[in-house]
Amino acid sequence: MPKNNLVILKLGGSVITDKKNNRKKINKNNLERISKEITEAMSKKGFSLIIVHGVGSYGHVIAKKFNLSNGYKNKHQIQAVAELYCDLKELNLEVIKTIKSRGMDVIPFQQSSAWKSHNKEISNPNLDVIKNYLALGFTPVLHGDLMTDDKLGFSVLSGDKIVYYLARKLKARRVILGTDIDGVFDADPNINKKAKLMKIVNSKNINNLLIGKSIAMDVTGGMSGKVKELLKLAELGIESEIINISKSNILKKSLCGQKDLGTIIKK
Amino acid sequence: MPKNNLVILKLGGSVITDKKNNRKKINKNNLERISKEITEAMSKKGFSLIIVHGVGSYGHVIAKKFNLSNGYKNKHQIQAVAELYCDLKELNLEVIKTIKSRGMDVIPFQQSSAWKSHNKEISNPNLDVIKNYLALGFTPVLHGDLMTDDKLGFSVLSGDKIVYYLARKLKARRVILGTDIDGVFDADPNINKKAKLMKIVNSKNINNLLIGKSIAMDVTGGMSGKVKELLKLAELGIESEIINISKSNILKKSLCGQKDLGTIIKK
Repeated sequence: MPKNNLVILKLGGSVITDKKNNRKKINKNNLERISKEITEAMSKKGFSLIIVHGVGSYGHVIAKKFNLSNGYKNKHQIQAVAELYCDLKELNLEVIKTIKSRGMDVIPFQQSSAWKSHNKEISNPNLDVIKNYLALGFTPVLHGDLMTDDKLGFSVLSGDKIVYYLARKLKARRVILGTDIDGVFDADPNINKKAKLMKIVNSKNINNLLIGKSIAMDVTGGMSGKVKELLKLAELGIESEIINISKSNILKKSLCGQKDLGTIIKK
Repeated sequence: MPKNNLVILKLGGSVITDKKNNRKKINKNNLERISKEITEAMSKKGFSLIIVHGVGSYGHVIAKKFNLSNGYKNKHQIQAVAELYCDLKELNLEVIKTIKSRGMDVIPFQQSSAWKSHNKEISNPNLDVIKNYLALGFTPVLHGDLMTDDKLGFSVLSGDKIVYYLARKLKARRVILGTDIDGVFDADPNINKKAKLMKIVNSKNINNLLIGKSIAMDVTGGMSGKVKELLKLAELGIESEIINISKSNILKKSLCGQKDLGTIIKK
């Protein structure tokens, strides 16, 4: 199915922001280093790129406090949503500025203005604009967001969900999920010292995996959710990798084509 | 035709930014005062509001320097466009933060992610998302922008064009164009000291007007263009006003319903 040279890269919110203290804060060191790695890889290898970043400390606190993940419940949420949008724009602008300062033609793409959902499912948006941007040579930068929802008022659109959606619809060649852990383990590495990193995850060995509650979850879905969705992409022929981008040079190597850096999810 | 309680307000780029010195700079005094006036009027009168702001010194310099108004010509423009988007987001975020600090539920709406054009004309976008936001009680804040264009690569979308488009499609009750001049004059007030402010402009007296080159033009269309488009809205039954929002309290009075503050454009 993949027929073009599009790579979709997720930058985990826990890597580019500092989630300690429940206050919005960018992890500048990580963001600067990641920007450098992306730019260096892009200048070596020619490919189209879409970047989707998580929101980390810029979104999860408000989303949780006002229970935004279950849609419109009361008018107090409206003010919270306005606050959230503002915070997300602030983060997105900082991410874009930092990557752009390295010379990449990154541009903001605000999917919440273009997409809506029905009962939490993205309602078949027109993707012409994002295709136009890619054709012109831009790197659109999207982020976890809140969409209006025809049934629920609004719904949370996680960065991961955007990645799966776009990878499927735009027939991405590769999907790279940059997180702050090395990949998928066969047990919870925080509890079990014998936990091993799985180099490959596929539909055959998935049942043997001890995932789920074993790895830290966030409000938009943890590792088990990621693997499940990535396996669906694998079924369509889109291979993906989960790598640790909080460590130096993993992302750069991965963007340059190296494949043994984390966990590969394939058919 | 107008059947709802929607007001569309344009905040002129020359009012909210400082256009001197060709460097991006916000006119903080004006922006603070305008935010206060909007919030006070909104708390007195219940209506839905869409705010569209111009880009002033945040857009015109790059747009002119790289000849962006005529579409894609060369790859140097791509970097300029990326720079422009970044500047526009910076301005938009500042506008939103300032208005929001007064307690209004303003949110960013990035029309360039949702809309595209064909040969400079907006290609019939789905307006459900913006309708959803209004229904939830938000005040979307849009701005002059650059869209991708199916024929030209990209095209400039002026704030004014957004206003006319949305007013027509969403059947606005009122349109208020906030500028830094008192309204439409019967001669160029900078040259002719006898120039009089026209209280009303309609299709009958339009031919007697000395507009066009008489009033300072900008790259996205000057006063004559504004009047022409507003007369088209008037034909649809949508009355509009051009007022001077660089002076105190004009905007507040206008939003509260007063009608003798500038030039009314009616059928």
